[in-house]
Amino acid sequence: MLKLDPRKPEPGAEALEWFEEAFRRCARRVLLATTLAGSGHPGGSLSSLGLLLAVYALARVNPENPRHPERDRVVVSHGHISPGVYSVLCEYGFFPEEPFLLEFRRAGSAFAGHVEQAVPGVEWNTGNLGQGLSAACGMARALKLKGIPARVFCLMGDGEQQKGQVIEARRWAVKFGLDNLCVLIDYNRLQIGGDTYQVMPQDLVAEIEATGWNVLEVNGHDFAALYRALRRFVLGEVPLPGRPVAIVAHTVMGHGISFMENDAKWHGAPLPPDLCRKALSELGFDPGELDGWMEKRRSAGVSFPHQPHEPEPVEIDPGEPVLYDPDTRTDCRSAYGKALRDLAERNNLPGKPPRVLGLTCDLEGSVKMTAFRKHSPRAFHESGIQEHHTAAAAGALSKEGFLVFFSTFGVFGVDEVYNQLRLNALNRTALKVVCTHLGADVGEDGPTHQCVDYLGLLLSLKDFEIYLPADPNQTDRIIRFVANRPGNVFVGMGRSKVPVITDEDGRPFFGRDYRFEPGRADWLRRGEHGTFVTCGVMVHRCLAAREILREKGISVGVLNIASVRPFPREDLLAAAEIGPIVVVEDHLVENGLGALCARILALSGKTVPLSLKGLTEYPTSGKPDEIFARAGLTPEDLSAEMEVLLRRP
Amino acid sequence: MLKLDPRKPEPGAEALEWFEEAFRRCARRVLLATTLAGSGHPGGSLSSLGLLLAVYALARVNPENPRHPERDRVVVSHGHISPGVYSVLCEYGFFPEEPFLLEFRRAGSAFAGHVEQAVPGVEWNTGNLGQGLSAACGMARALKLKGIPARVFCLMGDGEQQKGQVIEARRWAVKFGLDNLCVLIDYNRLQIGGDTYQVMPQDLVAEIEATGWNVLEVNGHDFAALYRALRRFVLGEVPLPGRPVAIVAHTVMGHGISFMENDAKWHGAPLPPDLCRKALSELGFDPGELDGWMEKRRSAGVSFPHQPHEPEPVEIDPGEPVLYDPDTRTDCRSAYGKALRDLAERNNLPGKPPRVLGLTCDLEGSVKMTAFRKHSPRAFHESGIQEHHTAAAAGALSKEGFLVFFSTFGVFGVDEVYNQLRLNALNRTALKVVCTHLGADVGEDGPTHQCVDYLGLLLSLKDFEIYLPADPNQTDRIIRFVANRPGNVFVGMGRSKVPVITDEDGRPFFGRDYRFEPGRADWLRRGEHGTFVTCGVMVHRCLAAREILREKGISVGVLNIASVRPFPREDLLAAAEIGPIVVVEDHLVENGLGALCARILALSGKTVPLSLKGLTEYPTSGKPDEIFARAGLTPEDLSAEMEVLLRRP
Repeated sequence: MLKLDPRKPEPGAEALEWFEEAFRRCARRVLLATTLAGSGHPGGSLSSLGLLLAVYALARVNPENPRHPERDRVVVSHGHISPGVYSVLCEYGFFPEEPFLLEFRRAGSAFAGHVEQAVPGVEWNTGNLGQGLSAACGMARALKLKGIPARVFCLMGDGEQQKGQVIEARRWAVKFGLDNLCVLIDYNRLQIGGDTYQVMPQDLVAEIEATGWNVLEVNGHDFAALYRALRRFVLGEVPLPGRPVAIVAHTVMGHGISFMENDAKWHGAPLPPDLCRKALSELGFDPGELDGWMEKRRSAGVSFPHQPHEPEPVEIDPGEPVLYDPDTRTDCRSAYGKALRDLAERNNLPGKPPRVLGLTCDLEGSVKMTAFRKHSPRAFHESGIQEHHTAAAAGALSKEGFLVFFSTFGVFGVDEVYNQLRLNALNRTALKVVCTHLGADVGEDGPTHQCVDYLGLLLSLKDFEIYLPADPNQTDRIIRFVANRPGNVFVGMGRSKVPVITDEDGRPFFGRDYRFEPGRADWLRRGEHGTFVTCGVMVHRCLAAREILREKGISVGVLNIASVRPFPREDLLAAAEIGPIVVVEDHLVENGLGALCARILALSGKTVPLSLKGLTEYPTSGKPDEIFARAGLTPEDLSAEMEVLLRRP
Repeated sequence: MLKLDPRKPEPGAEALEWFEEAFRRCARRVLLATTLAGSGHPGGSLSSLGLLLAVYALARVNPENPRHPERDRVVVSHGHISPGVYSVLCEYGFFPEEPFLLEFRRAGSAFAGHVEQAVPGVEWNTGNLGQGLSAACGMARALKLKGIPARVFCLMGDGEQQKGQVIEARRWAVKFGLDNLCVLIDYNRLQIGGDTYQVMPQDLVAEIEATGWNVLEVNGHDFAALYRALRRFVLGEVPLPGRPVAIVAHTVMGHGISFMENDAKWHGAPLPPDLCRKALSELGFDPGELDGWMEKRRSAGVSFPHQPHEPEPVEIDPGEPVLYDPDTRTDCRSAYGKALRDLAERNNLPGKPPRVLGLTCDLEGSVKMTAFRKHSPRAFHESGIQEHHTAAAAGALSKEGFLVFFSTFGVFGVDEVYNQLRLNALNRTALKVVCTHLGADVGEDGPTHQCVDYLGLLLSLKDFEIYLPADPNQTDRIIRFVANRPGNVFVGMGRSKVPVITDEDGRPFFGRDYRFEPGRADWLRRGEHGTFVTCGVMVHRCLAAREILREKGISVGVLNIASVRPFPREDLLAAAEIGPIVVVEDHLVENGLGALCARILALSGKTVPLSLKGLTEYPTSGKPDEIFARAGLTPEDLSAEMEVLLRRP
């Protein structure tokens, strides 16, 4: 294992010799692992090996304590080079090679096909290209905020430079002065489809320089050149101080094996055993060892323990609830903004790193983050119209000991970045996504801006809780609750002002004694004949529908589902005991709250007259009340629907 | 209405005078419309007005026939400047101003908050920023393929230049030689969050030049300069012939109204009536007219008829089915590739524009498009690792008289581009999204690549049919069916080889006489005691589970749901008449086929012992059979589950 002192201008002959030998040892592991697994990506692994070996020689990481908070972070964005990464981590002592060779790509093993944090030394699960740099940016920013003088090295493929998210990340890195971030691009000029320039014309260096980065071009198989470039980054000896560094490393796919070089075929296919033996010979190893490993792998179980990688804890003072009295007429997003500002006041203390961070994408005013920004300018991250990058960077920040709120409209924070949230979930982040402007309630901005599908998407994500407050009081309580909730949480709300929900005596329903509990629904009103099950901006419409029915002598309850996940199953089943259920939502009815209720009822074996009232088409531009009227969702429509169900034999 | 001849080197004094007057008239409409609606975006509308007026003076468009196939296309990517667009379309005679002023942003009107094709002259619904250029690229490519010498003008905001999708589109435009595409950027340097460079540092000109475009910088309020720049594009008098042109137009937000200029406040807020009157005075109009319009709007109904915008028709010969006999062992994606190649042979004829197009994102081999590419190189579009752009461009192509297949893995074609598909649906495209590598069947590539949420997402989209073939024969028939199916269709399949499904006599179930019908399920086996309801790669596992039960004397049917949308409701209800139902899927169980079946059963008022067998967590890397075993989805597990249900009292 080699560690180099960057103060030395050259790596020295001994180190260079070690590099050459380590390259051979790692190449052997790459070939063995992929051939043994019968799948994997040897070509890019070989072209990236030099970069990996050089980075770990300079990175301050400790295999005995791979999650030390002050470590340098190494993010590998082109996660398919997992055989290369695992081989180099072996070389640097993070784990022995045997479990890697025996378990690579086997079900249940840490040594997954694309790098996963289950393996010690891996900082971020990647695989969908173009996202790793955003995570690296989040980490680099976290280090700056915490005042830790560590660095982030991000290795990337050249094909993934085509993803738009990458240029978003580059700009963000400049905005936040991430001179502690170094990107190394494995520029082998081949992707699955062949020559990168033929696949998609791109002047990589010109594009990176246009974003104001330092660019250093080197031969990626020349360890001395790699060392010198990395050293310049580490010492800050670059033309544009204060800016990140990109090392464009010219490499050869399949480097080191004569018949693999420059052949895109080996991007994603392992050598068959005969060619693997031939390659081992070329590297100077005994070709026969493959057969020994094959034999061993046949009988081996899955043994290697996963590396835990829970987010760093953060201690948050949630503050005191704000009480909105029944005369107040405000929107939930303003209550969110107020709670967020309160969290900042209590947790972002002068002279200390902030604990609560906020990110938005050119919608600070609309999502009510202005007071937060004014209180904690350093904790606020205006990230531009760059939602893909921001969602991923926010996820990475949330693992670094911060409470992170990412806020934008529903269509941007859910529909546009669904896959980034999915990758966050796979990375076990602890992100709080707070979206305003859900549903048709968005109004005049029209269908492109009306997020009427958030539940369908969020219920398709694992490891995201889903909370939908009904009024400003409940918003305030939920935001404070979420501040200390581990894991990923989504909180969603509409755009419009809504009445404060009251109890039958006219007092705030979510008053001083109310505590939000996940998995519990709110019986806003009890009824004897049936129940409206609803959430968000439809709650007050259901309460109005209930009044219409009450005047006719019909007693109908209103059950508010603020906690969609975990779902209050028992409350729904209790409603089913009473009588008909009309589920009312500001969402496409095919895959929203109603569909969820129907599924739970079906699985419970209960039948009850059931109607799902929501949107059946994308709504149009218009005032919310107009839109709801056109969709048959006025209190009059809802009460009439309940009457239909009540009349059913 | 002004039309200019680009052969003239200068617009001439008369035209310049007309421009100045037209600007005043349009500015008046912008201010009236937004103030009357009480919402909208006057600031950017005013800064873009000059660009719009100049473009329409040169664009070959006919207000009498706004959908003429040989017209120039004008795409407005920053759709929030709808008041500006509608004002200029009025000016050029596309419709009278009265319905626009009375109905702007009213529910049910064509004059939506963000531009929609419902309005004559609008080519593409936009609103979510950064997508319009991709659509414009699709149109420009379509014109090239059809040999129509028309042009595409794409107007964009400067804020949206931050979206990564924009640079993807720029590169694609270079790759496909779109010298018939001209982008005009309204460079007013303000976005919602203020100064664009403060929000996100970006050297716009350097970034565009880095992608190899022609860049012309002009004063966007100087009509003569705008004319000269546009003329250079039209005549091809640019430094890089064969490349697209970007006109970076320096403008002032709120241009023309003293107290609105350079104030980001007016990006998304209308003038209050008093300021609107003041602005009308500044423009030289009677400020009192506002009140007249206000009065009129109060009582006006919604009258303006929507412009129809169905996709251009395309006539396709679907060819003859390929029969895969029971000895065949192949994967559905190979059957897709073969059918696609056959469609190319029959419809892409020498010397004529191709009718069938294919797009992929660096996965040609995996999605089996190679034979198609070899037959129809011009119809094949390798679009690089740029899924966001490609999904949107493919959508635009599908409206231009082509049958368009967009193929990639499920995680990229659904999860990554969900919002692009949503915008396609809003634009009523006719795209065929064929995704391979669905579900845990992806195997060793692991959770980042396993699309186990496609149904949750696709069922959240309107206007997308969903077909999931069970074997190569059904794949072949579905692809040929889809070739003549209007609208958007998703076809999904796994990665692995699957057996040919046979009937009880061992003949192919989807044989010579089989015709695919949307909304109909396939009773692969009838049973007396219960039913497995399933699809895709789980079908053969259910057939095996059925055999296990048969040996125990239990008779269980297998119902294949290849048409998830439209859903075969009657078949499911028929199954519920028989006995217990076990729904089996290669998908997260919380929001997939099982959830859909449960909902339909609940709404039908039927109770039946029901179990949903699918994935409850993200799977790991591993061989599919290993993964399914870990998830409790082997034939043995499935038969055991059915037995549990059958024993239930």
